[in-house]
Amino acid sequence: MKGKLEQLKNLLHEIHDLAAASAVLDWDQQVNMPRGAAEDRGEQSATLSRIVHDKSTSDELGDLLNELTAMTQNVDADSDDARLVKVAKRKYEKNTKVSGDWVATFAKETAVAQSTWEQARAKDDFELFRPHLEKLVDLRRQYAEFFKPYTHVYDPLLDDFEPGMKTAEVQEIFTALKKEQVDLIHQISQQPQVDNRFLFLHYDGDGQIAFGKKVITDFGYDWNRGRQDISVHPFTTGFGLNDIRITTKIVPDFLNPCIFGTFHECGHALYEQGIAQKYNRTALADGASMAIHESQSRMWENLVGRSMAFWKRYYKDLQEIFPSQLGNIDVETFYKGINKVESSLIRIEADEATYNLHIMLRLEMEIGLMEGSIQAKDAAEVWKEKFKEYLGIVPPNNKEGVLQDVHWSSGLFGYFPTYALGNLVSSQLWETMLKDNPDVEKQIETGNFSQLLGWYREHIHQYGAKYEPQELVLKVTGQKINAASFMRYLKSKFGEIYNL
Amino acid sequence: MKGKLEQLKNLLHEIHDLAAASAVLDWDQQVNMPRGAAEDRGEQSATLSRIVHDKSTSDELGDLLNELTAMTQNVDADSDDARLVKVAKRKYEKNTKVSGDWVATFAKETAVAQSTWEQARAKDDFELFRPHLEKLVDLRRQYAEFFKPYTHVYDPLLDDFEPGMKTAEVQEIFTALKKEQVDLIHQISQQPQVDNRFLFLHYDGDGQIAFGKKVITDFGYDWNRGRQDISVHPFTTGFGLNDIRITTKIVPDFLNPCIFGTFHECGHALYEQGIAQKYNRTALADGASMAIHESQSRMWENLVGRSMAFWKRYYKDLQEIFPSQLGNIDVETFYKGINKVESSLIRIEADEATYNLHIMLRLEMEIGLMEGSIQAKDAAEVWKEKFKEYLGIVPPNNKEGVLQDVHWSSGLFGYFPTYALGNLVSSQLWETMLKDNPDVEKQIETGNFSQLLGWYREHIHQYGAKYEPQELVLKVTGQKINAASFMRYLKSKFGEIYNL
Repeated sequence: MKGKLEQLKNLLHEIHDLAAASAVLDWDQQVNMPRGAAEDRGEQSATLSRIVHDKSTSDELGDLLNELTAMTQNVDADSDDARLVKVAKRKYEKNTKVSGDWVATFAKETAVAQSTWEQARAKDDFELFRPHLEKLVDLRRQYAEFFKPYTHVYDPLLDDFEPGMKTAEVQEIFTALKKEQVDLIHQISQQPQVDNRFLFLHYDGDGQIAFGKKVITDFGYDWNRGRQDISVHPFTTGFGLNDIRITTKIVPDFLNPCIFGTFHECGHALYEQGIAQKYNRTALADGASMAIHESQSRMWENLVGRSMAFWKRYYKDLQEIFPSQLGNIDVETFYKGINKVESSLIRIEADEATYNLHIMLRLEMEIGLMEGSIQAKDAAEVWKEKFKEYLGIVPPNNKEGVLQDVHWSSGLFGYFPTYALGNLVSSQLWETMLKDNPDVEKQIETGNFSQLLGWYREHIHQYGAKYEPQELVLKVTGQKINAASFMRYLKSKFGEIYNL
Repeated sequence: MKGKLEQLKNLLHEIHDLAAASAVLDWDQQVNMPRGAAEDRGEQSATLSRIVHDKSTSDELGDLLNELTAMTQNVDADSDDARLVKVAKRKYEKNTKVSGDWVATFAKETAVAQSTWEQARAKDDFELFRPHLEKLVDLRRQYAEFFKPYTHVYDPLLDDFEPGMKTAEVQEIFTALKKEQVDLIHQISQQPQVDNRFLFLHYDGDGQIAFGKKVITDFGYDWNRGRQDISVHPFTTGFGLNDIRITTKIVPDFLNPCIFGTFHECGHALYEQGIAQKYNRTALADGASMAIHESQSRMWENLVGRSMAFWKRYYKDLQEIFPSQLGNIDVETFYKGINKVESSLIRIEADEATYNLHIMLRLEMEIGLMEGSIQAKDAAEVWKEKFKEYLGIVPPNNKEGVLQDVHWSSGLFGYFPTYALGNLVSSQLWETMLKDNPDVEKQIETGNFSQLLGWYREHIHQYGAKYEPQELVLKVTGQKINAASFMRYLKSKFGEIYNL
């Protein structure tokens, strides 16, 4: 078996090296590339993707995985070797079950749909985008067929981002959450609003970056294995486990995007920098799922970065950089301002308390579209109805409604719930971590994050993609993913801020 | 034939896309990559190189090239199609004639030799490097054997950088040059020396970069298809014809490296930016040879960048950026200072008049080592003797002698002469260009380079790698590569500066 495992690792190394090269090309495109290079870069990326796909679906790899699956029946199912074979086989099957024709059609259709969506959004014209949405929903239903038998037509889509997770589980979690969260927002809306106008003054970009850098250095971001750059859309990417880069965007007259975005991306990066080196260049050198990844980014952004303990330590540093903007704002006012809750139209600008409602609306619509209980042609109207139901307001147009996100135009269905699941998981893990480290809040007040990071390294990061998300959360917290911790967190934090 | 040509182009596109990806990885490594990523990046680059090599030596490509070679017998030998087949076949044969064993041994040996050379240079210890030099000379002689029959054992090495050029031709050229050039240096050394101390003041890095950017923008560098970054060793690289990037280094207390280095790299980049788009992603999307490439970089660096006409226009801009350093230095003094001639130890710091002597010494040694008339064990002593002969001084140690260049430790033999040939070609082309554009000097005085660049675009750049270097120079100037123009240039320019 040892020889076969070596063979497998060699094949995976090659695939991962090529995927890393592809990721470097993509990073460069978003951070550095001159505009005139776009077409050539498209060809280069397509060539690399084709080779990665060929190697990821080769008979050689398939045969080897079958042999090794049989061989690993007799070894500890939780051993690294058995898990590597399992995860690699799962990916292989995902890659090979889908027909080449479907992949080609999907690539063509999403390319057109995405550029049409851009126009449709600019013109606020849902009808322009409608035929593409219909086509993509249809393609995604065809996609699900490749994975028959399934319990729910949405299962195969969800499974692409949350390995092993089922639609019924997600629905149960969000059903339990929905009423409580809507009630909380309603209560908050009855209270006097906090002031956050000081966040919208002019903040020099260099100062924003300097503050973010200082903080994430303290968090534990390893600059020897990463770097930070500026890009239009912030993201985290990695080329192997020793080069995990983040990007940030600067909005000169709004403080939040750069600093909280930096914390957020750093959270993703800390996860990947913490994966055990022994998994490098294999299928295990990845996060467990999108939700687990998001639990880490949200944790540093919100549970740490929007906490009073954090700002007790760092507010004076921020005031020093921006004395004219923040010199007269005390830390309590600042804390309340960055935690202002309000029903707003745009998901990516939503606060912690309303964010999940934006997701639940999308999840219901995705499930409805896939089931056929919602028609793509009705999507704009259904959006408005559901928005009213969840957030109490009706979007005045479609560009701030059904057309706001890029996801559907890129054919991404099943991705949205991972954002909300990430919020829930972040609170579940945090409660467990607090039991092991009751002093963590005091440590944060002194800018000491080593025990905090150490806990996540030990319980989450090191395992990479070894465990499925539900399995990992159960192993660490003793419970499957659920909304209880998150609701406790919201009620406690915002109850205090809004005197509920 | 049309179908077969399409097939060929598709194969070449794939190879060139992968080579471009590899070049992006290399650029990123030198410009951005965090240190901790070195090992993983090495694996990624090796994986890509292996795939590029496999595809460049595939039977599919070989068979296709054979078929097309037969087919193109009946078409114009100078047509793009016939030339593409010829150049691609040439490369294919180069790649397939060398055994895989040799390539693997050579890769291993150069890796060790290069790190040993770094230590040897630091310790000024030739004996430490000697066994590796012996081994590499031996490997390069084995390499030549793959290309038997040859007229001279050095021919196959030279041919890697100067397609079609023979050792005898290079020797003839340099023999003609040697006496004249040594005489000139001797005459200059008898004259009063010019002052260039003002070049060694503190020059702020941002100011150096700003000046360089302004100038190369005027030269015609297309920022929409390129960018400039900082790296330890300046270089030019390209990923397809629409993304040609340059790098620059800043030395805070010496003005020359950044500004003349920027002109130099820009010259390489202008060449590649000027290659006809129809050749993109094929074997013709490259310079004709290293010497032709160097003729372009040296032209912008020296014939333009170190000319009086240029500084008549740009000196006031430089003075404005550095008033305290240059405010009291007039343009004549500045011009003489940047053109100071002196025998010095280090090739890369040599001036225009002595540079070729550094090369001729290396060429003689390389030929001697390959022929066996010089033994690797004697290299340090031979170096000193020849240095005395060429430049009139004896290096006081080996780190400023035989150990100064990285080339031999990387197994690069046959590369050095291209630097000097580039100088010669730059003058030959310049004289021809002047006949077509007698007003070019006046245009330079006004910062107008469009006719100048246009001439090189038309006569050199657009053709890419279509013609061999001798062929191209003959086609454009009516003569093969020779030293006459260059000696006329040196005597005229330095005769004036040094009152000969």
